[in-house]
Amino acid sequence: MSDDNPAIVSAAILVIGDEILSGRTKDKNIGYIAEYLTTIGIDVREVRVVPDVEAEIVTALNALRSRYSYVFTTGGIGPTHDDITAACVAKAFGVPLDLNEAARAIIAERAAASGNELNEARLRMAMIPRGATLVANKVSGAPGFRIGNVITMAGVPAIMQAMLDEVAPTLDTGAKMLSETIRADAKEGDVGTELGKIASANPGVSIGSYPFFDDKLGPNTNIVVRARDAGKLAEVRGQVEAMLRAVKEQLAAAR
Amino acid sequence: MSDDNPAIVSAAILVIGDEILSGRTKDKNIGYIAEYLTTIGIDVREVRVVPDVEAEIVTALNALRSRYSYVFTTGGIGPTHDDITAACVAKAFGVPLDLNEAARAIIAERAAASGNELNEARLRMAMIPRGATLVANKVSGAPGFRIGNVITMAGVPAIMQAMLDEVAPTLDTGAKMLSETIRADAKEGDVGTELGKIASANPGVSIGSYPFFDDKLGPNTNIVVRARDAGKLAEVRGQVEAMLRAVKEQLAAAR
Repeated sequence: MSDDNPAIVSAAILVIGDEILSGRTKDKNIGYIAEYLTTIGIDVREVRVVPDVEAEIVTALNALRSRYSYVFTTGGIGPTHDDITAACVAKAFGVPLDLNEAARAIIAERAAASGNELNEARLRMAMIPRGATLVANKVSGAPGFRIGNVITMAGVPAIMQAMLDEVAPTLDTGAKMLSETIRADAKEGDVGTELGKIASANPGVSIGSYPFFDDKLGPNTNIVVRARDAGKLAEVRGQVEAMLRAVKEQLAAAR
Repeated sequence: MSDDNPAIVSAAILVIGDEILSGRTKDKNIGYIAEYLTTIGIDVREVRVVPDVEAEIVTALNALRSRYSYVFTTGGIGPTHDDITAACVAKAFGVPLDLNEAARAIIAERAAASGNELNEARLRMAMIPRGATLVANKVSGAPGFRIGNVITMAGVPAIMQAMLDEVAPTLDTGAKMLSETIRADAKEGDVGTELGKIASANPGVSIGSYPFFDDKLGPNTNIVVRARDAGKLAEVRGQVEAMLRAVKEQLAAAR
């Protein structure tokens, strides 16, 4: 992988919320977004989790948006005092936070339909950085938004997922990273040396090795080969399979 | 919360691994470590996830270790070519990566007991930054380590958890952050304005508001009040409960 390949689109995820850092809420968004973006041809390169503190959010956002094609934020866009993400995004971009009329209309309609008061707290959710476009929220109304290369979404997983579905068709995507998982039926320590040789010989291909415990065989290994070129992927898969056969024959002969 | 309070011990978590960023593996360590550290009196202030790329790991590690009391890393200490965390920690600290004799002995003993070859791949796991102390791994032998304020642990959750149990008694801990969860039985948008006033009036107390969907009542809210002082916590809890009663009376009267 190299950053100068124009077919590569990169992303970072910025999770915002004290509740994730205290462990009270277990994040379910990172894995979902990572898998979703990988599938559509966007490489997630970094994730950060920061507290509900303006300086932390703004600093992280500016570090990430200058470095990756997209930044996806989750959390902090609700109606309460600890929801400060929209204000922080506005600050990071140096634009005002405005009452967005389209967002206000959506929230007003939803409030009327639910018999809720359109109060100060609910109107907070219509405060959107100037120049942003809204990202629809089919679950609960109050929208996310996109400004520049930053997409700001809710933290509640069902709402975040609905927003990601809305925004995904509008994103640039690159050559998809293809992957194959090869179950080694061998211990990681028995295949590591030879696997490293294959990795060194194929610099354009990413090879990962992930131990797992197999109820039948005991310690086992999944080898994951990743490449954007299907031919190259198949070639390296073949090399890994041949290596596994050779290692297992050697081990059998030694016993 | 303020950083100049000597009773506060802070931490960051650095998750290392392509498999988390691709979404292939869903992280289970962040939430576990966050909850564990919060419980023993260490505040997690930031989390980063980075790929198996030396420059990324070293940069993140140096940014985090200079800023927080502790950094806990997970992942990348196995026997394969993609396990580069120990080398990166050594590089970040500017020390050599040595064959650690104590680690070698543990790995050799484990290999002999399991009938495994003590090969180059397995010996990779005995390469430890000079000056580090080992963190025992009661699950599978190959140890983690600690150097300075950085604690390097495995990525496999069961092994990471065992290592965290080993290292926890050796850590400095601060005044514990206490928390109380108050179930509002009200919509977040109905309590947000008044809750914000309580938050502003109590700057030393952290108040979070977390919407959830209640099968009986529909949209509902958990309000989490956090403080290190038990008396202050009880006082603010009382204020929140009084506010909830008042808001619900107003809403009932308006209907």
